[in-house]
Amino acid sequence: MLRCEGAGRGRVFGKRRGDRLPSIRMTSSGKGSGLVVEMGFRVRYADTDQMGRAYYAAYFVWFEAARGAFCRVLGFSYSDLEEAGVFLPVLRTTCRYLRPLVYEEKAWVAVRLVDCRSRSLLFSYEILTEEGHRAAEGDTYHGFLDRSGRLVRCPSPFRERMQQVVVNPAGGRPVRRIRLSETDDAQEAWRMGS
Amino acid sequence: MLRCEGAGRGRVFGKRRGDRLPSIRMTSSGKGSGLVVEMGFRVRYADTDQMGRAYYAAYFVWFEAARGAFCRVLGFSYSDLEEAGVFLPVLRTTCRYLRPLVYEEKAWVAVRLVDCRSRSLLFSYEILTEEGHRAAEGDTYHGFLDRSGRLVRCPSPFRERMQQVVVNPAGGRPVRRIRLSETDDAQEAWRMGS
Amino acid sequence: MLRCEGAGRGRVFGKRRGDRLPSIRMTSSGKGSGLVVEMGFRVRYADTDQMGRAYYAAYFVWFEAARGAFCRVLGFSYSDLEEAGVFLPVLRTTCRYLRPLVYEEKAWVAVRLVDCRSRSLLFSYEILTEEGHRAAEGDTYHGFLDRSGRLVRCPSPFRERMQQVVVNPAGGRPVRRIRLSETDDAQEAWRMGS
Amino acid sequence: MLRCEGAGRGRVFGKRRGDRLPSIRMTSSGKGSGLVVEMGFRVRYADTDQMGRAYYAAYFVWFEAARGAFCRVLGFSYSDLEEAGVFLPVLRTTCRYLRPLVYEEKAWVAVRLVDCRSRSLLFSYEILTEEGHRAAEGDTYHGFLDRSGRLVRCPSPFRERMQQVVVNPAGGRPVRRIRLSETDDAQEAWRMGS
Repeated sequence: MLRCEGAGRGRVFGKRRGDRLPSIRMTSSGKGSGLVVEMGFRVRYADTDQMGRAYYAAYFVWFEAARGAFCRVLGFSYSDLEEAGVFLPVLRTTCRYLRPLVYEEKAWVAVRLVDCRSRSLLFSYEILTEEGHRAAEGDTYHGFLDRSGRLVRCPSPFRERMQQVVVNPAGGRPVRRIRLSETDDAQEAWRMGS
Repeated sequence: MLRCEGAGRGRVFGKRRGDRLPSIRMTSSGKGSGLVVEMGFRVRYADTDQMGRAYYAAYFVWFEAARGAFCRVLGFSYSDLEEAGVFLPVLRTTCRYLRPLVYEEKAWVAVRLVDCRSRSLLFSYEILTEEGHRAAEGDTYHGFLDRSGRLVRCPSPFRERMQQVVVNPAGGRPVRRIRLSETDDAQEAWRMGS
Repeated sequence: MLRCEGAGRGRVFGKRRGDRLPSIRMTSSGKGSGLVVEMGFRVRYADTDQMGRAYYAAYFVWFEAARGAFCRVLGFSYSDLEEAGVFLPVLRTTCRYLRPLVYEEKAWVAVRLVDCRSRSLLFSYEILTEEGHRAAEGDTYHGFLDRSGRLVRCPSPFRERMQQVVVNPAGGRPVRRIRLSETDDAQEAWRMGS
Repeated sequence: MLRCEGAGRGRVFGKRRGDRLPSIRMTSSGKGSGLVVEMGFRVRYADTDQMGRAYYAAYFVWFEAARGAFCRVLGFSYSDLEEAGVFLPVLRTTCRYLRPLVYEEKAWVAVRLVDCRSRSLLFSYEILTEEGHRAAEGDTYHGFLDRSGRLVRCPSPFRERMQQVVVNPAGGRPVRRIRLSETDDAQEAWRMGS
């Protein structure tokens, strides 16, 4: 089930192809565009600690919320994968903290997919303040697992979609940047060009 | 310091009165309007538990985020209070869970101030699904404390402001309803009439 | 599956009856004893907020950890219930905060079962400091639900067990008090008389 | 203030030296021993996500709890540092997830100090299951900061203490291993040789 925004619950991923899903082939080469999704968030009181700044584990929650938004922009949800029997746990993660974030501060997580293999994904993240400073950067490396915990291939509709938006650090591929809030309709954001 | 949105950091609460702060006297009687702030949020993977629904303690974090938004709409921040040496911890809270919330579901916390005394506040909350169903309801009762933990009077500029927006369940006072996302500029939302 | 301490994973609840499970009939009347489980915990940095005290939602996590310990003392686990297709979400909760808890402070959650019906449970909690002061008190009201979210009867082995340890506030039933840490072997604690 | 276990609150760090603090010089060379503190914990329902395993950010909370225990074994607390005007935020962290942890599973965080400089610390962690399997491994790199966020030297009593227990991966220094639960009296654990 897609739990996208809009009229009630969505439909199974496979069934939606060619239907409501936005085309993500954007260039004449048919290669699509590297995608950066920037999801806004605000530091909650719950996120603070007695040092008066956001606690270090909170960043991983923001990373997760942002990669959820990234997937929604591509037209699917973690839950779609899970209903297809595929899980995408984090196998490794890193975060570097560059500037503290304080209560009620508004900031952005910029997430991009930097590697997309048949059995794994690598996302990278930057946390940007309203003034554009980098407050943190990190990455998460994920494996596709089945219910029994074995590495499996990513189901092809998901994989094709993701391969189209991988950011190639070396390459000349144009990068599309979409800004949205956590509650925005991600597909709308895509269509509107953010 | 006000950590409001907009151009960098704000200024001390007291200094901003009559300046950038929106007028919240809205009726001819000069009594202002009862205010309901509805803050949108989305259930994160971090919020889920192995039952596949949002964990019960997450609701209190959403309540907190919403009352932060409520204060921002009124033109101040918890941090302003704290910089004035006044703390506003929760002394009692309740939540009733009516419908489960699931991963990625978008919902609203509707928060209102139902009692505002010299030394305490009572907020009430409803969590509403996109379809308008009540998923939960609760309240938080707060005391104004000084650094040493003694009950003190709420500093008057904060108190006056809050008294203008108390929702009187009995009374005929009009209620103003403002919808915003967690990252929206709360004062802008106020000015725009949501 | 029981995930009790000891040699690897346990066995299915039903199969363990009359086997490794401790007898909890303790009085000559065959009614068993009211049970209070006191689980020690320590405030983590993650639990603190910028007020320098434990954040109000953390208490509900401690309540949950303590009722998990309570069930382990009785010889079963939430996961056993879930594997039997029965879920026990919180339907209502309350907490009153009496004294702040600070970083690294060690405290106890005293949990007791105050009502046990065919389709619901009511637990009550006290948080006690090392010096024996009450820092908070609360309760959680739970329903037994099936996978589709309908109220169902608690499976009888679980129910019988719980009924034997209900604390009757009015009654003369003796109360047994067991102190353990979160990682202690709960059944060992039971056998050793704490 | 030391918030050690035992009779009420402790005393200021500096005053306690040569007093109640355990000697940590253990070898004839006067160099002390490398120290590994293994802190037990249990996966809470709050820690699980809808995949039915512990959520990836929870590991950083366990790391934090374990390094708190590590410091308590050495006779001080984060709060002591903070009262001396020195903060020790995480500047970088990593975690590799090797095996999932499930609800109620009991496990250990083994923490050691692998580098101790005048302005920074590096801790490493392993999460070990009851059966001794590695479930995760990670590290946290910390800087000593003053209130204004500038890197400062670690106050010398803290630093001396920590230097005595650095684990030298290359060297022949004996390693002392202390197992305790999160609520155990850390100094007692030290004296008892775990």
